Parts: sequence; C-alpha cells; structure tokens
Amino acid sequence: MIELAPSILSADFARLAEQVEAAIQGGGTVVHFDVMDGHFVPNITIGPPVLKSLRKAVKAPIDCHLMIENPDAYIPAFADAGANWISVHQEACLHLDRTLHLIRDHGCRAGVVINPATPVETLSEVLDIVDYVLVMSVNPGFGAQPFIPATLHKVRKLVALRNQGGTNFRIEIDGGMALDTIGEAIRAGVEIVVAGNAVFGKGDPAENARELLKAANSATLVKV
Amino acid sequence: MIELAPSILSADFARLAEQVEAAIQGGGTVVHFDVMDGHFVPNITIGPPVLKSLRKAVKAPIDCHLMIENPDAYIPAFADAGANWISVHQEACLHLDRTLHLIRDHGCRAGVVINPATPVETLSEVLDIVDYVLVMSVNPGFGAQPFIPATLHKVRKLVALRNQGGTNFRIEIDGGMALDTIGEAIRAGVEIVVAGNAVFGKGDPAENARELLKAANSATLVKV
Amino acid sequence: MIELAPSILSADFARLAEQVEAAIQGGGTVVHFDVMDGHFVPNITIGPPVLKSLRKAVKAPIDCHLMIENPDAYIPAFADAGANWISVHQEACLHLDRTLHLIRDHGCRAGVVINPATPVETLSEVLDIVDYVLVMSVNPGFGAQPFIPATLHKVRKLVALRNQGGTNFRIEIDGGMALDTIGEAIRAGVEIVVAGNAVFGKGDPAENARELLKAANSATLVKV
Amino acid sequence: MIELAPSILSADFARLAEQVEAAIQGGGTVVHFDVMDGHFVPNITIGPPVLKSLRKAVKAPIDCHLMIENPDAYIPAFADAGANWISVHQEACLHLDRTLHLIRDHGCRAGVVINPATPVETLSEVLDIVDYVLVMSVNPGFGAQPFIPATLHKVRKLVALRNQGGTNFRIEIDGGMALDTIGEAIRAGVEIVVAGNAVFGKGDPAENARELLKAANSATLVKV
Amino acid sequence: MIELAPSILSADFARLAEQVEAAIQGGGTVVHFDVMDGHFVPNITIGPPVLKSLRKAVKAPIDCHLMIENPDAYIPAFADAGANWISVHQEACLHLDRTLHLIRDHGCRAGVVINPATPVETLSEVLDIVDYVLVMSVNPGFGAQPFIPATLHKVRKLVALRNQGGTNFRIEIDGGMALDTIGEAIRAGVEIVVAGNAVFGKGDPAENARELLKAANSATLVKV
Amino acid sequence: MIELAPSILSADFARLAEQVEAAIQGGGTVVHFDVMDGHFVPNITIGPPVLKSLRKAVKAPIDCHLMIENPDAYIPAFADAGANWISVHQEACLHLDRTLHLIRDHGCRAGVVINPATPVETLSEVLDIVDYVLVMSVNPGFGAQPFIPATLHKVRKLVALRNQGGTNFRIEIDGGMALDTIGEAIRAGVEIVVAGNAVFGKGDPAENARELLKAANSATLVKV
Repeated sequence: MIELAPSILSADFARLAEQVEAAIQGGGTVVHFDVMDGHFVPNITIGPPVLKSLRKAVKAPIDCHLMIENPDAYIPAFADAGANWISVHQEACLHLDRTLHLIRDHGCRAGVVINPATPVETLSEVLDIVDYVLVMSVNPGFGAQPFIPATLHKVRKLVALRNQGGTNFRIEIDGGMALDTIGEAIRAGVEIVVAGNAVFGKGDPAENARELLKAANSATLVKV
Repeated sequence: MIELAPSILSADFARLAEQVEAAIQGGGTVVHFDVMDGHFVPNITIGPPVLKSLRKAVKAPIDCHLMIENPDAYIPAFADAGANWISVHQEACLHLDRTLHLIRDHGCRAGVVINPATPVETLSEVLDIVDYVLVMSVNPGFGAQPFIPATLHKVRKLVALRNQGGTNFRIEIDGGMALDTIGEAIRAGVEIVVAGNAVFGKGDPAENARELLKAANSATLVKV
Repeated sequence: MIELAPSILSADFARLAEQVEAAIQGGGTVVHFDVMDGHFVPNITIGPPVLKSLRKAVKAPIDCHLMIENPDAYIPAFADAGANWISVHQEACLHLDRTLHLIRDHGCRAGVVINPATPVETLSEVLDIVDYVLVMSVNPGFGAQPFIPATLHKVRKLVALRNQGGTNFRIEIDGGMALDTIGEAIRAGVEIVVAGNAVFGKGDPAENARELLKAANSATLVKV
Repeated sequence: MIELAPSILSADFARLAEQVEAAIQGGGTVVHFDVMDGHFVPNITIGPPVLKSLRKAVKAPIDCHLMIENPDAYIPAFADAGANWISVHQEACLHLDRTLHLIRDHGCRAGVVINPATPVETLSEVLDIVDYVLVMSVNPGFGAQPFIPATLHKVRKLVALRNQGGTNFRIEIDGGMALDTIGEAIRAGVEIVVAGNAVFGKGDPAENARELLKAANSATLVKV
Repeated sequence: MIELAPSILSADFARLAEQVEAAIQGGGTVVHFDVMDGHFVPNITIGPPVLKSLRKAVKAPIDCHLMIENPDAYIPAFADAGANWISVHQEACLHLDRTLHLIRDHGCRAGVVINPATPVETLSEVLDIVDYVLVMSVNPGFGAQPFIPATLHKVRKLVALRNQGGTNFRIEIDGGMALDTIGEAIRAGVEIVVAGNAVFGKGDPAENARELLKAANSATLVKV
Repeated sequence: MIELAPSILSADFARLAEQVEAAIQGGGTVVHFDVMDGHFVPNITIGPPVLKSLRKAVKAPIDCHLMIENPDAYIPAFADAGANWISVHQEACLHLDRTLHLIRDHGCRAGVVINPATPVETLSEVLDIVDYVLVMSVNPGFGAQPFIPATLHKVRKLVALRNQGGTNFRIEIDGGMALDTIGEAIRAGVEIVVAGNAVFGKGDPAENARELLKAANSATLVKV
C-alpha cells in the first residue's frame, strides 16, 4: 500500500491544524515532521513544543524526521511530545545501533535516513533493526527543491536487499516529490512518499494530496 | 510606556495565528519569538519557516530571541523571514559587536540578552549600540519556569547605567512573568515584559494579556 | 574549621581504597575526586565507574570536581554514583545558574570553580546559591604543578564579598598546596584545602595529611 | 591461541591491582583498559593517570581501547603511561591511516575498532596496517550490556578477508562475552575475547576467567 | 594528457609569484593551492587573501584543495578570490552532493578528495557529478611526506569504475610524488599529478617541473 | 617609543618579502602576522608555513596574532617557525594563564587580545604576566574595516591600570589605523600601532609607513 506523508515544512505554520487536517482529508496517512537544528543542516525549523501542539490537533501518526546532531539527546522529548515514528540520519549517528534501539525503547517505529551522497551500503548492519529507510532525494534543509533522479537507484538497491530476506523495512522517499516525479519513485519501489510543496505549496492541500495519490496509484498499475 | 510581549513558546502551535491575534487583541504590542537550536539551550523550538508564516498572519512587530550558537549564520534568514527585532545572547557571541551591527545592517532593532548567572558588567562595551537589553529571569530553554527574583537587581543596575548617559537602550525581561511577579519587575525598571505561560497557559489569551497589563500599569502608579 | 581534601589525582590508582583510607586516617575529611574529560582540560582521568567503586570503599564525603564540558549531561551520573559535593567550572557553563540548581536537585552540595585567569567578578550572580567556591591555584589538568601565589588575592576578595552579607559559601583552594604554601592560603581565608601530591606523592599519606593539617592550623594561630 | 582480555571497566576500582592480578591468575593474558571521554561515548571512565598506576602493578600487556574523540592528541600520553596495545575507533578518526601509524611510532601494537552499526568494508584500506581489529558486540559506553549476535557475521567476514592474503591482523571481540556467548564467538573466528562483567561481576575473577577460557577452548575443539 | 600541478605548500611564500611562475615555465599547468584550517587537519596554511594576491600574479588555473571543516561556508570566498577548481574532502562533508553543486554554482570545477584510509566506495553516489577525484597518497597536513604506494589500487579502481560508463571525472594524486614515484602513479591511471617538495624543495622549480613531466610521460610510453 | 607594526593581511601575498621590506624601510619595526583559522573568525589567512618563509626573508621581529580556536595546539608550531611575539584572544582561551605561560616557555613575548565587545576587566588576572595587550579597534576577520573610536576608552583604562603598578605591559592597537585615526590612538596611550591597509593598501608601503609614523609622533608632541 502506498502512503502519502504530507510534510509540514511547506505548510502555513500560522494555521497548522487546519492545514494538516486538509492534507489528511485528501488521503495523507502519516504527518511528516521535519526537525532541523541549524547544525546538522543549515536551517532551524520546529521541535518538541510544536509537536506537542500538533499531537493534540491531529490523530494521524506523526513521523519525526530528525535532521539534528546528537539525536539521542532529543529522542525522549520527541517521544514524550507524541511522535509515532522517529528517523535519524546515518551521517549524524556515531552509535547508530544504539540510537535505533533508543527510538524503539520509547515505543516508536525506528527509521534511518541517508543523504543523496550516502551509499546504501553504509546501512548494511542496521537494515534488520529498522522499520523504515528514508532515502533523501534532495539535500535536506529546505523545502521546494528539485528532485534528484539518481537517488532512485538506491531505492531499487534497497528493494533488492530486502528481497534477499532477513529484513522487513519499508521504503520512504523525501524531496522533490510532485505529480511529475511520484510515479517514477513508486515504480522504483517507494512505499511512503513525503510531499511538502506539492501538497501545501499552492491550491487546496486536500485536492493536492488526492492528485498525488492518484498519480502514485496509477504508477503501480502501470508497473503490473 | 510598558509593553507586553506575548511569547509564543507557550502558545498552541497548531493555531498560532489565532492565538497571537488574541494576545494582541488583549494589548500585546510585540510578539516574542523564541528560537532554540538544541545546542545553546537544551530544547529545539521554531525557526525561519515558522516566522515566515507568522509574519503573513500578524502585523505587530516580531521580536526574535535567538537562543542559538553562532547567530551570525542565521540573522540574515530571520531578517528575511520578517523579524523586526533580533536579540542575541552575550554568552553565545565571540564577536558581539559585529553581531549587533549585523542585526542593524539587516534593518532590525538589535538586542543583547544575559542569562541569570551573567553579570551586567559583561555588557559594558555594547550598551551604547543596542536598542534593548533582555534580562533572563529564568534559565532559557523551557516555558513555565518560576521567576528568579534575584535577577531584578540587574534591571536596577541597567537603569542606573543608563542614567549615567551615553546610552539609550530599553529594558526587557523574560521568565516567570505573571500577575504576581510583573509588578516587581516594572518597579525595578522593566519596560518590555515577555509573558508566555501567563498569556497562553490557560484561559483566554486576550483576557490574560489585559490582566497582565493592568497589573503592570498599577505597579507604575504605585511607584509614583 | 580547616578541612583537608586529599586529591586522588596523585594517588596510586591500583590500590585506591587503601590510599584514601590512609589519607582519611591522617585527618582528611573530604575526598577530592578530579574528573577530566580531555576536552575542557588536556587530560582524561576518572569518571562515574571509579566513583562508584570508591563510594563503597570509603565513608567520607566525596567532592567531585568536574573539569568537563557540558557538565549537565553528567551530574546525574555522578550523583547516582555517590558524589556528595559537585563543583563545576564557571568557564564550562553557559547556564551556570541552571547547572548549580541541577546539582542541588540531585541532593549534592554545589560548588563553582574559577581558573587562575578568571576574575572573581564573573561569579557575582551565583555566590548566593553556591555552597562553596573553589579557587584554582594552578591551571587544571595535571597534578604536582607549582602554586600560583597571585591567586590568593581572589581568596581575599571572596572573604570580603562574603562579609558584605547575603551569601554563605565556603572557600576551597586547589593546586600546589604543600607544607610551604598551605599557611599562606589559610591566612588568606581558605577553609578547605585540596592536596594531591603533598599527600600521596611520597611517604605515608596519613603522616603527610597530619603534617599538612598541623601546618594549616598553625597558620590560623599565627593569624590570631 | 585464544586470549582472554579481562576488561577493568567492570572491576572494583578501589582495589584494581588485586582484581587484575586475580584475573591474570585465572588465565587472562592481556588487560583491557576502557578509556571513555564523555564525548565519543556517553560515559567518562579512566585515563593516563590510572594507566600509569596500573602499569606499575601488573606485568601483563595492557590494551588501551580509546573510546574518545581526536585520539591523536592522547596517544602519546597513553604510550608514555605504559600502554602496549592501543586501539582507536574507525568512527572517531578523520585520518585513520595517520592515527594507526602514530600508535606504531610510539612502540605499541595498533588496533582499529568498529561499532555494531559500522560495516567491515569501512576498514578496507587499513587492514594491512593493523595488528588487530576489535569488533564491538555491544554499543560502547557501559559494562554489562547484552551481546548482539548479529555482529558475529563481521567476524566471519574478517576471517574471510584475511584468508585472501596481504594482511595479518588478529580478531578481538568486546561486549556481552560470557559463558553462554563465548563459544559462538570463538567458532566465528575470534582470537581475543574481552570480558568485563563475566570476569569481575560476581564471584572470584580468577575462577571466572578460568571458566571462560575453558568454554572458549571447548568451542575450538567442537569446531574441529 | 598528463598535467602537473605544482603545490605551493612547499614553495617559498615570501616570493610566491616568482616561484609559481618558474613552476609554470617548467610545464606546470594548474596551481595547487593547499588550504588548511587547523581543524580538519593539524596545520594552518593559506586562505582567500593569499589566493586573491596569487590570482593577480598568475594566469594558470588555480586548484583549491580545501582541507577544512564545513567547506560550504568558504566556497563563495574562494570562488570570489579567483579559484578555478575547488575540491573538498569526502570526510569533511555531511551533505557532499550539496557541497559539490555549490562549487559548480560558483562557476568552478568540482572535485572530491579521499584520505588514504577512505575507500573509493564512499564516493559511489557522487562520481557522476564531479569533475575530478583527488586521491591522497599521504595523510594531508604537511608537505614532504613519503608516498603511500598502497593508495594506487584506489586509482586503478577509479579507472575501472569510469570505464563502466556514466561518469567523466579525471584522476588526480597528491602526496609524495617525485621522480621515483610519479611513473608508478601514471601507470596506475593518474592524470593530474600534484607535486610540492619535488618542484619547490630544492633546485630550480622550472627544471624540477620539467624533469617530473619527462618522467611522467616516459611512464606513459612504457605503458603502451 | 611609538612602534609601527605593518600588518601583512593587506599586503600583496604574491611578493611578501618585497612588501615587508618596504614597510620596514619606511620605519616599521615589527611585522604583524594575522593568523585566522576560519573558526574563531570567519576568514582563513596564513599559518606556520608562510611564517617560516617570511622568517627567512626578514630580520624584524614578527608578532603573530592568533585569531584561532585552541591556540595551545599551535603555539609550538609558530614558535618553531620563527615567531618572536605571540598574542592570543581572551575570548578563545579557557585556560588563559596556561596559554600565556606556554608562549613564554617557547621563548616568545606573550600578548593578550580583546575584541571590541570585551571589557578590560576580563584581563584583571593576567595583566601581570603579559608583555603586551592588544586592543582590537575593529572586529577581527578582515582588513580595511573602519576604526571603532569607542574602543579607545579601553586603552585609557589600561594606562590607568598600569599606573597603579605591579604590571609592565605595552599597549597595542589593531583596526582602522590610518592617518586620520592614529593620532587619537597615540594620545589615548597606544604604543604599538598595527596598520595594514594604510601601509599596503595603495601607494608605496615605505612612504605610507613614514607618513603614519610622522602622524603618530606629531600626536605625541601635541600631547606634551
């Protein structure tokens, strides 16, 4: 099943509940919550206090994508504030196995993220302990960046690795997903699509989400 | 003139426009925007993307309190996103004179902030170039902390320094300000009162703001 | 009352219980435990696991001197491992007021330490909340360094500040304390003397401690 | 030949000489010395001053496992204090080739360590210049953690790589080694077994060491 | 075509224009400019102000090898000062794809560098976007170090990867290149040879450059 | 005696020997060597290799102004490369007393530098151990910045402190010194004037130096 994860990075933060509700109305099933600390990435976005407010306003699971240094220090705060999924960057974790277990110990699904320049092979020792792998298809830090198609070969590699057995992760993509790119991603094997600008950029988020999902599902049919 | 600066750190971030509007309705004249990077302080809050959305939703000046390392790297982004005032911590700036000029060069009022343990004397070389001094009356990082009364002697010291001439800064306080503490702060010389939990914690932000301003203004009368 | 705090930095770590016991036998009343992380100072010494073992072996209070970056992250571990006193460096704490309260919240006495180049004035906002001030009379990092006599004027300044009322801290000194320097320190106003090399360097720690205390107490007499 | 390396991280630090002697009596042939700086790992343990004391007390070679940032800055101090083997983490070294040569230039055997999440492939350019590879079978930082069996496939991979020729390293394992896990490790190809809690946790270290070695040697026989 | 890149790290900095001119006279076609910040490597060398002066003095393209942390912060300054090529270390870049595009966006050729201990595989996701790969054949930081022959297998691997198609990078080597090592490097597939000490160490830079190029070109002939 | 210290930050680095020689010809008596690491200040300039070349080319004493983090790590390299004076920033040194002694132990004169925003009072514990105090009259990082006149009151304060006895330091100024500002600085009490742009910016460095010295000496006369 294809899931659409509306990324609030591109939403109107002055009326977040309303925006997220619309995106969910349109078929979004998990809220993508982009956390940036101004150190791991060159931007500062949102943290636990915003999550806490959003948690009360929406029922959908919230997927916290931690683009921060030393995530171990903040995982408990995000879990307490209501995160359901938490993902961390391979590039940010010296003790990645510990960090992933820490996420699970706080009752959340654990994901690992790789930047466009990071090979899939760096994840070989953790694929059996993650719930999902998030492949960045732009360099993290800002919304509305163009999709990097070369990252899709990593999606295909992950599908192949999973087919070898012993692992059970899902594949998520984040960056530049829009009507003209989502099909290609789905065909490569993506199961969860993060979309920010394509959902919240202009027009009605509900309608935008619906269109994206339609495009995604068509791609699946084509595949068969 | 006493100004009330509602701090959105304690607001409901799911409906920020509405919350801020109410606080301004109640007499708030400047919006206090608490930026934390998880490095200078042990919390991550909000950054430029949230500011950009809020800027479109409210007309009141926005006062960005940067609780971050290396603020020079982010001052342009905050100015671009719509900040009117920007303050930086003395403890976070190796080149404080440059940083304050950088804020002004971006068309914003420049403020300097000191933590509870930091003496006023550390500011002696910059009092002539700042628009305001923000005295922290709690340790920055979280909302709803109790007021540290011992910090008021720093407010009095700043008043005395300003009376010596050559400077023209205003005095702001942040931390634990509520109906039972605001009067004491005003009598010490505070001119801008940041209040988060006392405005947004419970009840109607507009009504809360009105009550706080009433208490603040009564204190002034008492003083005379 | 003069207290002698034997510093285990100069002890034989292969038989710590025995060494500390001897020093206490000789009159030591508090064990000085020098923690270095290789970042705040250019040496790595001992941490919570060593403290935990020592705690079981000795009954005297243990004074943990944290020469580390970001002490907030380790104060709980030291308190759990059995620390009775914990001191932190002014130079290492961005939020010194918070850190000192954190120590107290963990049931320990809270101390603040200043390096030889750090003026007493940097402590003006925390003298009312500390149990003791530790004046470094050498640059921290290594044992057996020569005493810097110029640091004693800071001890005298602290005595004078305390005499002005409103504070109730004790004064500790650390660095180069030996038979020929302890008297001068005591006469300046020191109440707790850390001694490492002079106790454990050569000869019997018990005897060495006794001699140091005798010298310290003679100095007091002379003073009268 | 199987070697047992008792890790003093789990020993009683108040009587280290006695504890280590017992473990050696029981067949331990190399002392594992766990150095943590509170930065690379979330714990602070022991450094050069403790090593210097231990060096005088025991004759067995001492294997310093540096779980620290910027090990180049401390390798000379550990060598001077009496280290015979020094290992550094792949994850901690920007210039790993230089660091390994620095260890050798100080007359010590050089080892490289990999965390549970780190693939063996990251070592491809240094296997020909190391004396041993240490595979972490727990995330470093604390004693008495449970063994991660999935790490053994890295031991097998190292054996296979070594069989291809051109390298001559030995294989060490650290983490969760006990009577019920040591056999599996040996059969995978481990030659040096670090054991902390299983040696010093409870009972007689000498007896514990003997039992572990017996279990290890039985595993070898079974293999045949 | 073989290119010789004289590295000014070994030149006489008191008369840089003259030295570089001589090296170019002798056949050098690109000037290698070694930037070190004392953080990524244990040395501080030269930065934008020196580049700006050199730019005015020489016409040859200048290749800035950034051995610095956080290169994104300085790429604009180097481009403005006149760099034609800019290379960054894989080990220094969290967001390597972004950094390489940043270089190109500033109108320069983009290169990626790997230390002796870094496998070629770490570059798999960026080989299609770089203009050149620089293989370090010494650990960066100082001039006049001996060549590490084992690094040449990485040159061969790069040639093989390029032969698979889809990429179009050139191969540069830096470290220990001299009359007795240059041939081996060329035969392995190196196209751009950085030489510092061999050009500027002693004798006439022009003559030295000529001899090196002659040795390099002979190696090519031998190859056929 | 007034000394002029030509700062090579504004010189033509392509022909450094020639430029410095001219400035000395014009009356410069000490060469100011501006070291920046891109971390303490937002620029990277020159380090030990450049100093080594310059040392061979000029006989005048060289004053290394270290605008770098962790100067202790590089003081030996600068001393070895030929520095005669070395100054470090108060803002960059956790253990300033140790750092100043380290400079002296390497046979150099030791100076301490303060940024425009740093009060003189931060130096109270080291004025008796420094050979000179360098007052920054611009924020360090770049040449050709305008003079900040408010910094001169710190020069006057230093003169007053020195008059109280017990210290014997000289007073240096750096930033914006030119024909129209040098007189004011001299009258405030400056004894060593750093000038970069005013010497090397345009025209003949020798002539420029002569004019500056003339202006400086006239100011002294006026004073009498």
